[in-house]
Amino acid sequence: MKTILSGIQSSGKLHLGNYFGALRQHIQMQEKGDAFYFIANYHSMTSINDGEEIYQNTIDIALDYLALGLDPEKCTFFAQSDVPQVTELAWMLSTFCPVSLMEKAVAYKDKVAQGLTPNIGLFTYPILQAADILIYNSDVVPVGQDQKQNIEICRDLAGKFNHNYGDEYLKLPEEYIVKSVAVVPGVDGRKMSKSYGNTIDIFDEGKALKKKVMSIETDSTPLDEPKDPEKCNVFALIKLFAGKEKQHEIAEKYRAGGYGYGHAKNELLDMIEVYFAEARAKRKELAQDVDTVRDILAEGSKKARERAESVMAPIREVTGIFKSYDFAD
Amino acid sequence: MKTILSGIQSSGKLHLGNYFGALRQHIQMQEKGDAFYFIANYHSMTSINDGEEIYQNTIDIALDYLALGLDPEKCTFFAQSDVPQVTELAWMLSTFCPVSLMEKAVAYKDKVAQGLTPNIGLFTYPILQAADILIYNSDVVPVGQDQKQNIEICRDLAGKFNHNYGDEYLKLPEEYIVKSVAVVPGVDGRKMSKSYGNTIDIFDEGKALKKKVMSIETDSTPLDEPKDPEKCNVFALIKLFAGKEKQHEIAEKYRAGGYGYGHAKNELLDMIEVYFAEARAKRKELAQDVDTVRDILAEGSKKARERAESVMAPIREVTGIFKSYDFAD
Repeated sequence: MKTILSGIQSSGKLHLGNYFGALRQHIQMQEKGDAFYFIANYHSMTSINDGEEIYQNTIDIALDYLALGLDPEKCTFFAQSDVPQVTELAWMLSTFCPVSLMEKAVAYKDKVAQGLTPNIGLFTYPILQAADILIYNSDVVPVGQDQKQNIEICRDLAGKFNHNYGDEYLKLPEEYIVKSVAVVPGVDGRKMSKSYGNTIDIFDEGKALKKKVMSIETDSTPLDEPKDPEKCNVFALIKLFAGKEKQHEIAEKYRAGGYGYGHAKNELLDMIEVYFAEARAKRKELAQDVDTVRDILAEGSKKARERAESVMAPIREVTGIFKSYDFAD
Repeated sequence: MKTILSGIQSSGKLHLGNYFGALRQHIQMQEKGDAFYFIANYHSMTSINDGEEIYQNTIDIALDYLALGLDPEKCTFFAQSDVPQVTELAWMLSTFCPVSLMEKAVAYKDKVAQGLTPNIGLFTYPILQAADILIYNSDVVPVGQDQKQNIEICRDLAGKFNHNYGDEYLKLPEEYIVKSVAVVPGVDGRKMSKSYGNTIDIFDEGKALKKKVMSIETDSTPLDEPKDPEKCNVFALIKLFAGKEKQHEIAEKYRAGGYGYGHAKNELLDMIEVYFAEARAKRKELAQDVDTVRDILAEGSKKARERAESVMAPIREVTGIFKSYDFAD
């Protein structure tokens, strides 16, 4: 069974665009191989220097993913920082990484252009990311197009390391570019994005959710006139939730006239409520008991460390690097 | 009691210049505080990509230091790689280190100028070094003048970290510049240095040692003429081994005439043999039993990890970084 590796970073509150664009497919990967999902809390430190925020982000990501269907029985779910072999391997890889290779990394340049402080953590992050991938013998790393270069860097470093030590100590991962399957419109009709402030959040509820749904921009066609569903932002969102038959039924109502955008919004609101009802209930329940969430991550980290140790043991041997301690869970 | 921290790098076979210039004083530090000595094997990876060489260097350094008087009962002696908290803290510090700070580091520029490949390990080494110092709550770091800037970088990073998190999580070390107390001449009269190929090695013996001592350059004053001891390379070396009285006695022979450089060389040879007899015997004995040497380092690493963990535990708390595992010895 192939090992699938995926790092999860906090992007704040999750919205429908995140869910239908990537997250749903992301969680489905747990069915497709031996999936390792880690919460990239070390990575967060490159841009967040607030401990409470980093801690809370870690818990929130765990709550979000567990609520939305990530099953710790089916995959290995843990925090990046719970596997000390990662920074150990990152150091080793850094000695095989030409400075020029990091200077060429586009993600760093982009982040600095966005106003992030050019710190060494940010600069060398592709090395830590490479260690994150290589330490679990990952076969497949599903990433977005923007991460393509970092996977190449990972393969490059692993290749240099293996070449130097004369064997395949590190497995070169395949990249697997995940295409965003659905562009979800925000309430203003542009792509749903936190930066546009046009999101409908997955865990919004009650008045907050209703207010957002009601704010979806529509044209001013009067209630009794026929409407084109394919030109309507509300209908575009309805399509994400409704089956073919239901979509067809609502489209008919649009075209028949006498069906207003307010009606459509109310139907959408109901659909969102139903669709995420279970996830919301589960998230609330889990949020009451953060210790259990931490236990889940701790349990996952045991398996992650075990895998990481199986990769590092022969590497320490061949690099001539001492280790006399063990890990206890 | 102050914690004294010192990293030891392999510089190959140790010679008299190493010993009288720094190593003897280095070992004496074990009497002056709670001394932590670590063998910088991670650092070695920035310039050596041969695992056997790194392993052998680690063992050799341990043998050298233990033979020359380092007492694992008096200090904490271990390998850098045996304390995983070091690379963990290094990552955290890297997120507080402006790229520009590394670009200013002179040691990196020097090493690249010397022909070493400019890899990221070399480039970011001052961060790993800072972690090495800070992880043990070190008070004093005795270093050569060439390491002054790196101690400043360490203090700078610790200061930024503490300032951000609002407390003294990392102790700013004092630098303590060790002056080379004796410039030891090599067999050609220039400063003894491996790069000049003019060394007399501490653990040279028998014919090899004799050959080197006999090759010390002297002038061509005939045997029976008076000689000036202060202008003689042999006498300069004798002074390192002989007490005041013995020095005076030999100086008199130089000045009286009838005492040749060959005589002086033979006296020096005897002195070297006597001075290092115990160390050589001990080194041979230890070299027979490398497992014991590894046990000594492993034992030292327990104390080092304990100290490192006491520093990292509150840091993980304040940075919001998870850790659910423990270390077992």
